[in-house]
Amino acid sequence: MTEALVIFTPSGKRGRVALGTPVLTAARQLGVDLDSVCGGRGICSKCQVSPGVGDFAKHGVTVAPDALSPWNAVEERYKSKRGMISGRRLGCQARIMGDMVIDVPPESQLHRQVVRKAASSRTIEMDPATRLFYVEVPQPDMHEPSGDLERLATALREQWQIETITAGPHVLRKLQPALRKGDWAVSVAVFRDHMGGPSRILDIWPGLHEGGLFGLAIDLGSTTIAAHLTDLTDGRVVAAGGVMNPQIRFGEDLMSRVSYAMMNPGGDAEMTAAARQAINDLATSVAAEAGIDPALIMETVVVCNPVMHHLFLGIDPVELGQAPFALATSSALALPARDLDLSALNPEARLYTLPCIAGHVGADAAAVALSEAPQLSEDLVLIVDVGTNAEILLGNRDRVLACSSPTGPAFEGAQISSGQRAAPGAIERLEIDPATKEPRFKVIGCDLWSDDPGFAQATEKLGVTGICGSGIIEAVAEMRMAGIVDAAGLIGGPAQTGTDRCQAEGRTHAYLIHDATAQGGPRITVTQGDIRSIQLAKSALYAGARLLMDELGVERVDRVVLAGAFGAHISAKHAMVLGMIPDCPLEKVTSAGNAAGTGARLALCNIAARAGIEREVARIHKVETAIEPRFQEHFVNASALPHAIDTFPELAKIVTLPQVSHNTGGSESGGRRRRAR
Amino acid sequence: MTEALVIFTPSGKRGRVALGTPVLTAARQLGVDLDSVCGGRGICSKCQVSPGVGDFAKHGVTVAPDALSPWNAVEERYKSKRGMISGRRLGCQARIMGDMVIDVPPESQLHRQVVRKAASSRTIEMDPATRLFYVEVPQPDMHEPSGDLERLATALREQWQIETITAGPHVLRKLQPALRKGDWAVSVAVFRDHMGGPSRILDIWPGLHEGGLFGLAIDLGSTTIAAHLTDLTDGRVVAAGGVMNPQIRFGEDLMSRVSYAMMNPGGDAEMTAAARQAINDLATSVAAEAGIDPALIMETVVVCNPVMHHLFLGIDPVELGQAPFALATSSALALPARDLDLSALNPEARLYTLPCIAGHVGADAAAVALSEAPQLSEDLVLIVDVGTNAEILLGNRDRVLACSSPTGPAFEGAQISSGQRAAPGAIERLEIDPATKEPRFKVIGCDLWSDDPGFAQATEKLGVTGICGSGIIEAVAEMRMAGIVDAAGLIGGPAQTGTDRCQAEGRTHAYLIHDATAQGGPRITVTQGDIRSIQLAKSALYAGARLLMDELGVERVDRVVLAGAFGAHISAKHAMVLGMIPDCPLEKVTSAGNAAGTGARLALCNIAARAGIEREVARIHKVETAIEPRFQEHFVNASALPHAIDTFPELAKIVTLPQVSHNTGGSESGGRRRRAR
Repeated sequence: MTEALVIFTPSGKRGRVALGTPVLTAARQLGVDLDSVCGGRGICSKCQVSPGVGDFAKHGVTVAPDALSPWNAVEERYKSKRGMISGRRLGCQARIMGDMVIDVPPESQLHRQVVRKAASSRTIEMDPATRLFYVEVPQPDMHEPSGDLERLATALREQWQIETITAGPHVLRKLQPALRKGDWAVSVAVFRDHMGGPSRILDIWPGLHEGGLFGLAIDLGSTTIAAHLTDLTDGRVVAAGGVMNPQIRFGEDLMSRVSYAMMNPGGDAEMTAAARQAINDLATSVAAEAGIDPALIMETVVVCNPVMHHLFLGIDPVELGQAPFALATSSALALPARDLDLSALNPEARLYTLPCIAGHVGADAAAVALSEAPQLSEDLVLIVDVGTNAEILLGNRDRVLACSSPTGPAFEGAQISSGQRAAPGAIERLEIDPATKEPRFKVIGCDLWSDDPGFAQATEKLGVTGICGSGIIEAVAEMRMAGIVDAAGLIGGPAQTGTDRCQAEGRTHAYLIHDATAQGGPRITVTQGDIRSIQLAKSALYAGARLLMDELGVERVDRVVLAGAFGAHISAKHAMVLGMIPDCPLEKVTSAGNAAGTGARLALCNIAARAGIEREVARIHKVETAIEPRFQEHFVNASALPHAIDTFPELAKIVTLPQVSHNTGGSESGGRRRRAR
Repeated sequence: MTEALVIFTPSGKRGRVALGTPVLTAARQLGVDLDSVCGGRGICSKCQVSPGVGDFAKHGVTVAPDALSPWNAVEERYKSKRGMISGRRLGCQARIMGDMVIDVPPESQLHRQVVRKAASSRTIEMDPATRLFYVEVPQPDMHEPSGDLERLATALREQWQIETITAGPHVLRKLQPALRKGDWAVSVAVFRDHMGGPSRILDIWPGLHEGGLFGLAIDLGSTTIAAHLTDLTDGRVVAAGGVMNPQIRFGEDLMSRVSYAMMNPGGDAEMTAAARQAINDLATSVAAEAGIDPALIMETVVVCNPVMHHLFLGIDPVELGQAPFALATSSALALPARDLDLSALNPEARLYTLPCIAGHVGADAAAVALSEAPQLSEDLVLIVDVGTNAEILLGNRDRVLACSSPTGPAFEGAQISSGQRAAPGAIERLEIDPATKEPRFKVIGCDLWSDDPGFAQATEKLGVTGICGSGIIEAVAEMRMAGIVDAAGLIGGPAQTGTDRCQAEGRTHAYLIHDATAQGGPRITVTQGDIRSIQLAKSALYAGARLLMDELGVERVDRVVLAGAFGAHISAKHAMVLGMIPDCPLEKVTSAGNAAGTGARLALCNIAARAGIEREVARIHKVETAIEPRFQEHFVNASALPHAIDTFPELAKIVTLPQVSHNTGGSESGGRRRRAR
């Protein structure tokens, strides 16, 4: 017998190989995904496998005890130095001597899959643009003079099939000492350019580099900047952090920042510098949290809305503040991070920004599309990324449409009398008893409801400071369901509502949620103005979604995905009571969490995702709400609250809204009704 | 008649075109090289032509007076605004209405040829990597959202056939204001990457940019840095300048700088910063001299020896100081100039360094090869770039060899007792009367010989300060020809030579050239040590050339080219008397001037020259003198002076050297002989 049958699990790939073939070589011959950084030199231990012994009836194979070559000195040295799970072998050392079944554990798969933590169970296949290669380089020879870089390039071609390679001054400076210190073996971080440029060495280390390579996924929001430090070998998020966007001091919302740039010469440059500095600080702090050198951050992917995109790139966003909302560039960009002053990262680190869809539909929307992949959906999905502007995607595998809708900042707690950002002390959940009209609520930072025993002590330090975006949505919806607000959005007085919590404020009423004035705290109410702000915001959101439905010629969507940090906290039922989103079975309303951030991580971990979303974005049909008369129609029609029941049969199954009569002097009881919490 | 015959001169290209065809269109159809920046919009005036009228017997055509459409308003406006040579027409405006003969003047040729000023009459064909394009861009449309850059890219593809384009943050920042200020017409400087990357917009201007585009050719020498500011449209040198290399303070010659880097941590970085700062200062000063904004410098080409190359790139040159003399990289490099801190240029300016041939044969030698093109030579040419290291190329169209030879600094006036750099006051020419043994000389900065009337007054301010490289070569050769030095290189005493100018200094003699000690000036002599230094240097140079001749198996070369700033000043005859170069007819010894600088200008003006020299350098066979035993043999054999006559039949035709007899007490007259000055 000169050949043996070898079967790899879990892939099931099988074939015959010559006796004496190392497992790693056999895996490559059979197209099995088995990792190796050192190319089979027994150095990196990435190729660990679990060989089976015994009878594998399923595969029709019996594995003899001597079907693999004996445990050898290289394996022993590695195990004693670093440790190795019992039963494991190094794929580059163990040779196939008989029929074998070999399991490749997940951590030994080069293109291992990372299961996302979010609700959706889609996986990320690891294939980052930047990977580590261990390579042995021939020494220089005076008779055949060639540069060290040129010999390294030849070695990478021969040992790793990397065709053309380039290196910048930072790497050239390190090249000669690294080769000599590593005794002509080095590890190089190689970046592949999916846009067609040559591969590029981003960094070099003597011998085997064991410090890892990292990437930073950045969600550059108008209000907050979030960063996920990701291990580029296995996709793990090793640290996450967020900071307030320091541009807030130039303007709370995007349009006020555009105005700041218009009114102040050099104002855009101030905002650019502020954002870049914040990202540098954030990179430094997440690296410190993970205990790594920030110079090991080789790549960063940034997603953001068009105004943030332009400000981050150093482009004056003034054109985005006026029709026709022309972007300076809509393409994805791949460039050295140092060109944007991201000096905290590796000096050769690369930066990638996803493409923008349109002047109001940015790289963040593209990232949501990358994460949620509406173009792969069988059923018709509406994806709403809720923020100061809502980005809306509607489609399925046939066609995907996108628009943005100017919801304003009410959903983020701004322009609300007691509104605040989602921070400890903010009311985030609220219920109103339909009989007594009494509220109970929860605040961020405390797990108790306000009517639970011990709430007062538990929140003594926090305080109850205001209402955040998800809290105001629940409050308004609960007020409507409890009959405190009528279909037109008017808050009734004590006479109509039967509760003294509805108190006159000027010519309208306000509903009192919490009064801590006796303790020197705030008095938290929902005013008539607050109701109007929420009505405007939800009408804009709804009108945008309807506009896309019109464009597709549909009256219903199969499912709704709420995206965005805020979307993650919205109660689907309350959103539907308010009429924020079109009618849809409640169980078909899901949250994608920070889908834009997930999209950024996808682009970080998988190079094909970059080319993929660039193709998809070119196919997405954009609808401009600002010039579409039907948007105004939908907007006006959507302002009332009753349509929530009238037009949404799904919602009628779970809630019955009372009508508040302003004509009768007495209170109209909402009665008991089924409440699905 | 619906077609007409059109003949273009000087190309002679001819063909039939439809009546009414603009001359520019006809030129393009027939493949005639007619420039246009604005693409035929009557804006740039680059397409001016000289139409002929009358009988063109040579071409068999008679041109009628109405064979071109009448002078039109666009031409009139251009002429009144900018002026135009009488008889000229704008090629984009004048339409062909009958058989025509049309001359394209040199300044209207896109690939116009620039005749070099140097002795050789080779021409540079203008085809720089960076060119200006005028382009009209569609306005943004909300219904079809696309970025301004993407519409500009489409316009460049449609109007100029530029397939893919990219732009960095500096250009993105200027893009939107430029498009709007230029009313959707802009000029862009587009850089083509001959290494295969996408084309790149380096800068953008509203409307037609008339300020020109410039390139900087830099010869980064160990001692001096020279810059030629070149107009990238016509190849003219608009300003030139030079500064001392500030690295001199870290070490006079290359090896002392390598030592400085080895002995002082961070010493290489100091030298890197010094060189870059000097180039920035030089760029600023040549731009000021030419009256242009340095931000119009779009490209720079740097040539230098390997140590300067590494120091400029920020690479520690320590490996170049010891065998095997490994370069960090030998390839040509194309990178953003800002990556090397060249902040004086356009922020997107590109930098190109020529490839290095070997550890001792640098990008400067490659530039000499580019300028002198030995691989195109029919006859066997020896090219010598004389400096502290001599770079030597030998070859013809069959094969080209290269080596470097450690001549030491004697040829540059260093390590010579009265030696100095080539600066005002230095003796650069010297003759010795063979009968009287009296010297006469010229100093840099004065046109008179030292025995001309008025020399003393003319040099009163200058002084006679020392001997530069070319002066010491002439001095030693003249001493040999006058019988003051014998074949072994020994200076005779007054008894042997018959002149009191040969005075004892210790156990040897020195020849007195000039004594200004009475006036507080220097006493300038040629000492026995000086003769030894020159013997060593010339032996090394000769041995290198001989080694290459051995490798090719030849005893003679057909011609010799002396390159380098110093090579330009060497007298061919004196060089041959000394035995610096192999025997060759004197009229076949030419100077190429600063051939390395010319090579840099070629790479600046013609993109094909870059790919060309990269290919050539890969083919050049390198011979390492340091490990070749025959080099030592040749070196030892070349140290004597008599071989100049013995082995050089050509030289025997013009000079007869006397032998100095140290045994006879009397002087041996050299007699009169023909002296070819």
